[in-house]
Amino acid sequence: MSEYTGHAPSGTSVGRVEKRFFTFAVPPHPLDVDSGRSLGPVTLAYETYGKLDEQATNAVLVLHALTGDSHAAGYYDTADAKPGWWDIMIGPGKPIDTDRYFVICSNVIGGCMGSTGPSSTDPDTGKPYGLTFPVITIGDMVRAQKELVEHLGIKKLLCAIGGSMGGMQVLEWAVRYPDMVRAAVPLATTTKHSALAIAFNEVARQAIMADPKWNCGDYYENDKPGHGLAVARMIGHITYLSDEAMRQKFDRRLQDRCEISFAFDVADFQVESYLRYQGQKFVDRFDANSFLYVTKAADYFNLEAAHGDGSVVAAFAKARCRFLVASFSSDWLYPTYQSRAMVQAMKKNGLDVSFVEIEAKWGHDAFLLPNARLSGMIDRFLDRAAVDAAKEAKESGHAL
Amino acid sequence: MSEYTGHAPSGTSVGRVEKRFFTFAVPPHPLDVDSGRSLGPVTLAYETYGKLDEQATNAVLVLHALTGDSHAAGYYDTADAKPGWWDIMIGPGKPIDTDRYFVICSNVIGGCMGSTGPSSTDPDTGKPYGLTFPVITIGDMVRAQKELVEHLGIKKLLCAIGGSMGGMQVLEWAVRYPDMVRAAVPLATTTKHSALAIAFNEVARQAIMADPKWNCGDYYENDKPGHGLAVARMIGHITYLSDEAMRQKFDRRLQDRCEISFAFDVADFQVESYLRYQGQKFVDRFDANSFLYVTKAADYFNLEAAHGDGSVVAAFAKARCRFLVASFSSDWLYPTYQSRAMVQAMKKNGLDVSFVEIEAKWGHDAFLLPNARLSGMIDRFLDRAAVDAAKEAKESGHAL
Repeated sequence: MSEYTGHAPSGTSVGRVEKRFFTFAVPPHPLDVDSGRSLGPVTLAYETYGKLDEQATNAVLVLHALTGDSHAAGYYDTADAKPGWWDIMIGPGKPIDTDRYFVICSNVIGGCMGSTGPSSTDPDTGKPYGLTFPVITIGDMVRAQKELVEHLGIKKLLCAIGGSMGGMQVLEWAVRYPDMVRAAVPLATTTKHSALAIAFNEVARQAIMADPKWNCGDYYENDKPGHGLAVARMIGHITYLSDEAMRQKFDRRLQDRCEISFAFDVADFQVESYLRYQGQKFVDRFDANSFLYVTKAADYFNLEAAHGDGSVVAAFAKARCRFLVASFSSDWLYPTYQSRAMVQAMKKNGLDVSFVEIEAKWGHDAFLLPNARLSGMIDRFLDRAAVDAAKEAKESGHAL
Repeated sequence: MSEYTGHAPSGTSVGRVEKRFFTFAVPPHPLDVDSGRSLGPVTLAYETYGKLDEQATNAVLVLHALTGDSHAAGYYDTADAKPGWWDIMIGPGKPIDTDRYFVICSNVIGGCMGSTGPSSTDPDTGKPYGLTFPVITIGDMVRAQKELVEHLGIKKLLCAIGGSMGGMQVLEWAVRYPDMVRAAVPLATTTKHSALAIAFNEVARQAIMADPKWNCGDYYENDKPGHGLAVARMIGHITYLSDEAMRQKFDRRLQDRCEISFAFDVADFQVESYLRYQGQKFVDRFDANSFLYVTKAADYFNLEAAHGDGSVVAAFAKARCRFLVASFSSDWLYPTYQSRAMVQAMKKNGLDVSFVEIEAKWGHDAFLLPNARLSGMIDRFLDRAAVDAAKEAKESGHAL
């Protein structure tokens, strides 16, 4: 894969960053959520990179995928082995250029990386919510993000950008708060979860709920349901890679052995070892209940039902921003035909939309990997949006 | 899908059939298996339909897939709700015409439908083998089938035919016992399990082994690991269907409800309900340890390593039969490129091979579903093989 050549030397980082917290919806003014219930107080963990300009026109909201978090770029500590999850895209001179833009990324509600979720303490009981936490939707996640954006003094985002479940939030932003979004970049995503995508999530949830340690979600004082959560994660990891990627990465290569073992307790193949490792690593960092909540939110996502009365064209009638839509050729979780369908619906509404199917062999994961074409397109797309914003600001300045 | 119009009225059945048992490899003459261990006695559960001709030239060996059994056609009892698993293909006037051919189908060793497997009693201990059962391979399955075929008085099969793991056995037969196979039909299969296919099997095995009731395979006197086995089966079922099939079958339709539930204990979507049902149904009929063994056998399958010293062309150098290879356009578990690769290797050896990619939207499952094109091809292919066999029999008759 060729590398993106931005304005700055590669490897340039936003440097040391800090996780912040914003709390709102304090009772008696809780957040009403789609299920009909309410939640409060709500805390969002978030990070920002770059500086907000005086007229607050340069804010880019980055939305994370299923099990992501607010740590999109930079390092918490110089000893960190890895930077934030989209550091290749965010930084000085990078496509989401922190010399020009003010970048915000928050952990979704329902998550477990600092935002309020099922592992948070329910103020009414003093114990973790567990399954008493309300089931939340992509719409609820975005409602909460709007509170944060306004708290930061931003009336209109320059851009909302994200892939996978992050892309769903982008679409939700564009349709739910059309006056607050100038440009939107939904990547490797869909306007509604397919039966196939629901199926994988359902099996992953069943794996968690089959673990006796899950105990109906009440496990915070005991062992966590690690076996079930590991299996759930392994299922996810298969769907993030393509057949070709798996062949290149692993093929039938054996793991630390010359011969097959004829045993069940060892991982014969590298692909088995990789999955077991990914499963275990996930157990250390993620909450099983949160996994249930975020997968359910993704499964429930259906833009046309929520905003278009069953018509995706009608749903986008509410949008006013310009769009850059990208799919990835080997992504079989959110295949290109799903992006094409959303692009058609946008075009039928006369929206300004660019679409690209990126040739990439890495499957769904491709949106997180370096890709010169994608980087270039995002760079130019943000630049166009920034020029528009400057023009509008100048005009409104003249009008004063 | 159009229906095959064979020689007989559709719905014609082989009628009532019976499961039989053949026991061999009785100590001190056990079956040596690939792992270096030995097993005995070995019982194969099998069924036959039609009549073996005098010169024993009309035998068609049908090989079943992962969790299949010997019950390929007909009914055990007139009250049976369903016939055998390939009844659409086997019967009077059907492509595998029981008026012409003598059809044999046996349950694989390692299975749990009457053949010796991990749930069988170990004669040395008087208890079920559990994990002390030797890990077996596709080669071992075929070795055992050879004993049955010879026991039935057959020196050369007219044809070996099967899909998925059944197709692997077909390939193994053609290469391991080239003098015993006149024609071979590997359907929806591969010469070696891909990393993707191994990945799905590994996660399914992990789901079973994560169930505390699995108890290292020692559960026969207690509750079986039903939760883990159900999850394993659900994973399988996703891989058997295509994205398009799932959309047509389920899309986002809700199950017995008008609104989403905002709950985790119910199946909101039909696809969730379908998977839960399939998982539960499987627990009632299949043994969890057998699932470990048959998936491992499929994962270990690598024709070129076992017979070609790493070259698939070299592996097929041993084969002498004619081949009909078929893949299915929407099968993403064993995609067409894998069939094409085996066909190329066959052709490089000058073998007589016909290949077809069947346009079918149902995914891997398609090989089990009615398809006029496939039926017609199998019908004609068997006919050609039968004509050859008759000619050879006549010639050898003259020679006497």
